[in-house]
Amino acid sequence: MVNDEVILLDFWPSMFGMRLRIALAEKEVKYEYKEEDLWNKSTLLLEMNPIHKKVPVLIHNGKPICESIIGVEYIEEVWKDKTPLLPSDPYERAQARFWADYINKRLFDLGKKIWSTKGEEQEAAKNDFIECLKILEGALGEKPYFGGDNFGFVDIALIGYYSWFYAYETYGSFSIEAECPKLVAWAKRCMQRDSVANSLPDQHKVCEFVSVARQKLGIE
Amino acid sequence: MVNDEVILLDFWPSMFGMRLRIALAEKEVKYEYKEEDLWNKSTLLLEMNPIHKKVPVLIHNGKPICESIIGVEYIEEVWKDKTPLLPSDPYERAQARFWADYINKRLFDLGKKIWSTKGEEQEAAKNDFIECLKILEGALGEKPYFGGDNFGFVDIALIGYYSWFYAYETYGSFSIEAECPKLVAWAKRCMQRDSVANSLPDQHKVCEFVSVARQKLGIE
Repeated sequence: MVNDEVILLDFWPSMFGMRLRIALAEKEVKYEYKEEDLWNKSTLLLEMNPIHKKVPVLIHNGKPICESIIGVEYIEEVWKDKTPLLPSDPYERAQARFWADYINKRLFDLGKKIWSTKGEEQEAAKNDFIECLKILEGALGEKPYFGGDNFGFVDIALIGYYSWFYAYETYGSFSIEAECPKLVAWAKRCMQRDSVANSLPDQHKVCEFVSVARQKLGIE
Repeated sequence: MVNDEVILLDFWPSMFGMRLRIALAEKEVKYEYKEEDLWNKSTLLLEMNPIHKKVPVLIHNGKPICESIIGVEYIEEVWKDKTPLLPSDPYERAQARFWADYINKRLFDLGKKIWSTKGEEQEAAKNDFIECLKILEGALGEKPYFGGDNFGFVDIALIGYYSWFYAYETYGSFSIEAECPKLVAWAKRCMQRDSVANSLPDQHKVCEFVSVARQKLGIE
């Protein structure tokens, strides 16, 4: 893998892009980061992800891998000798995939509703969001990481949202730490890893980004 | 794996359940099929899938695996010696996962709108549904199966929908074969396999089921 060319088409506040940044960092893969402008997508992005036209896209030796969780599995399979991200036991692997899928199905849409809607719709989204986080907190249990003693797949799937917590709290007027103290303790634990700390943006910067997005959507 | 106890909680018209039936048949795994009543779910289903409360659930030696695509990957990993369902190359695996994910994200909801809505909403769903099938037909290309010469993961993810085509066509007043002849030829090719033919219900029976569902929803 010495002559590998790895490119990441990404957008800095993307919690999906963060997954690939973290996985690549865990595997110590060198790559070229290319920032996309989502309001003016590059020809390369449209060529590499013609179906969804979304970031992130991992491009390995000219071939695109789309959808962040699929990209994390790909990274795990290609650079398999370094820092396993998934457990080896099939049942534990299925459980890890289940929680990553649960995160994918629920958190993004609910989180977006918290900062982009008002009134009853926002209140319902906030309650559902907290309910999801509590379910995830239950799945974490007393373990340091979702997979047990080692940082891995579900941690990677979820931790990017932590950089959005302050924005959700600001526009939703609530405290995630008050609702889910163990989950926030887990997030802080993850943030002690260089792979995570170097891949997540500052939460205040994300909050400013959300403020600009609200203006573009005509909410502010 | 001689003393394995495998149970499938399923519902006969479920295209998601069909995936597990086919994968288990391909691997020649003996299992107990338990039919669920979706309007009166069993205690076992609620215990085994407390998060989504949905069929299908694969129960292997007492432990549940939820979400059908995750179940197919689990079956592939546990019974790995017989009939590989996923390619061994990481890039091809990522492509197979991409198309299974695409099918999951798009087809069920669009298909449901075809038989459960009217007027403009139905028309839009029909157009989007056909567009999706054409994209899938493009991904199939001139190959006999999605993965190439061998029946596999994406075929398993998609073929269950074929048993619903007649219902979609009946309530949407259109012909899928006229729009996507190569995809229908692929479906007929898959149906020549015992694993598929024995796992899919008769399309007229599915259409009757949809008629009953429309009555329950107050559409008919």
